[in-house]
Amino acid sequence: MAETALTIVNGEIQANPFNTLSVLDRGFAYGDGVFETMLLDQGDIALWQYHLERLYEGLERLHIVLDKQRLYEQMVLTLSAIATHSASSGGSVTGVIKLIVTRGEGARGYMPASESQATLVTLFSPQTGNFRDDNTRYQTAGVRVHYCNEQLPLYPSLAGIKSLNQLPYVLASHERAALDVEEGLLFNLSGHLIEATARNIFLVKDNQLYTPGLSVCGVSGVMRRLILQVITERISVKVSEKVLTREDFYAADEVFLSNSVSGVWPIVQCEDCSWPIGPLTQKIQHEIGQYLQYGSMLSWSAFSLDE
Amino acid sequence: MAETALTIVNGEIQANPFNTLSVLDRGFAYGDGVFETMLLDQGDIALWQYHLERLYEGLERLHIVLDKQRLYEQMVLTLSAIATHSASSGGSVTGVIKLIVTRGEGARGYMPASESQATLVTLFSPQTGNFRDDNTRYQTAGVRVHYCNEQLPLYPSLAGIKSLNQLPYVLASHERAALDVEEGLLFNLSGHLIEATARNIFLVKDNQLYTPGLSVCGVSGVMRRLILQVITERISVKVSEKVLTREDFYAADEVFLSNSVSGVWPIVQCEDCSWPIGPLTQKIQHEIGQYLQYGSMLSWSAFSLDE
Repeated sequence: MAETALTIVNGEIQANPFNTLSVLDRGFAYGDGVFETMLLDQGDIALWQYHLERLYEGLERLHIVLDKQRLYEQMVLTLSAIATHSASSGGSVTGVIKLIVTRGEGARGYMPASESQATLVTLFSPQTGNFRDDNTRYQTAGVRVHYCNEQLPLYPSLAGIKSLNQLPYVLASHERAALDVEEGLLFNLSGHLIEATARNIFLVKDNQLYTPGLSVCGVSGVMRRLILQVITERISVKVSEKVLTREDFYAADEVFLSNSVSGVWPIVQCEDCSWPIGPLTQKIQHEIGQYLQYGSMLSWSAFSLDE
Repeated sequence: MAETALTIVNGEIQANPFNTLSVLDRGFAYGDGVFETMLLDQGDIALWQYHLERLYEGLERLHIVLDKQRLYEQMVLTLSAIATHSASSGGSVTGVIKLIVTRGEGARGYMPASESQATLVTLFSPQTGNFRDDNTRYQTAGVRVHYCNEQLPLYPSLAGIKSLNQLPYVLASHERAALDVEEGLLFNLSGHLIEATARNIFLVKDNQLYTPGLSVCGVSGVMRRLILQVITERISVKVSEKVLTREDFYAADEVFLSNSVSGVWPIVQCEDCSWPIGPLTQKIQHEIGQYLQYGSMLSWSAFSLDE
């Protein structure tokens, strides 16, 4: 994606992303908030319903109150500003919208003030040709991964949600800077395979699909949820959550990664082990493409505030 | 402490704390940074040397580069601005300086850019009479605590340092909002007593001092370090790090909490259990007072950049 082209803070379009945030914001002080990174596909937000539900699951876990109407108005303004910006710049209405919600400003001290008002930020990064070309190549030719040394902490309070406490993923991703691979696999302190630094993981074994459970750590991705709840049913494939180890990973027939923005990446290599881009992975890729293209009931355009 | 009276971002005094930070700052996006909360005592920063060392320990853990000269200039500017502000407002040169260092601005994605420049923020909150009176009362009459339901994650990568990933402490402190106690005790997922939400904990048993080790979770407080490395030696008391449980806590002769800003608070009650404000706790309080009052070699005024 390109640099941030649009910044909206608390319902106001900002001239630029700088000098727009209070240093007293608890998102900055403590990582006290949640975020979503969403694919904007020709003006429509893919899988909006799932993003919205995970956002509110996170807000409830953190006891942050956010009026749905306020969020809705911020999103309407964001989409209209993107349309205006794209029309005037000849730019794309395809890209990534990042939505950040924090507890708002606060005085010193961890205890949240009862009267604080949530901070709402949306950022838009248009899709570039480079991103599109790279991503198409990763989807069709697969990616190489490594094992991260960094291990995920066991922390049920934040498991599944996308909080602003993301240092485990920052530290894990830092390892990749010195390597020529596209992703890193993360295990928890118990040695269980959980996910990649920005993607969920699926294994195929004997035509069944497996993915790690995320009750003690990991991010519950919206593309993972789509695969679990919609795609596997449409193609009649059995899927289950399971404790997975490095050995299960080695022994798998096919392995792939999922992400709401970049889709499904087959894993073709990890250290001295390799996998084919298998038929089930390709079938799932195809089915996701079909589902998102033709009338997903989960997208922004199908969303109504009254529901 | 009072509201924030002074805000300095990257070497520039800000008119107010609002609209001073980039929404692209990785401190905001991922909690990608560290902070220190320091006592400014009549213009001098108590225990500066320990704060500085913990700050750099945290920066190294996160692979964030911060030029010491840049930090030094920010601190000199901060102290001079506080002196000017206090002289003009008739305010206090006693209070709290909060120093935040983040990895700086970044594009989307967890992987740190190699060229990002750290963001430096200092905030000053003058001491109020209310804070001073409350704190004196807590030091002399003791405090009541409760057991937090929230458990600390086991995460060696962040253990000991003060990162901006502070949701465990936010969630734990949130529990206290509905209770009439001053602090909450935190255990880790293995059931070991670790600390309080913003303080370290010490137990006295048979005239010896014990405090939990902090290799898998917890914050290594600078007041804790002073007690471990300086105070106990001056009063010839044995001290050791030890795995501690709820039962050890119940069975202790004296228990107290330590913090660099609020000093030592004796614990007098937790649920149906109570403790006296014992002689060793009082001796330690007295010795810390003496040490900080008379020529601490750890304070800002004793600090030289050449060292």
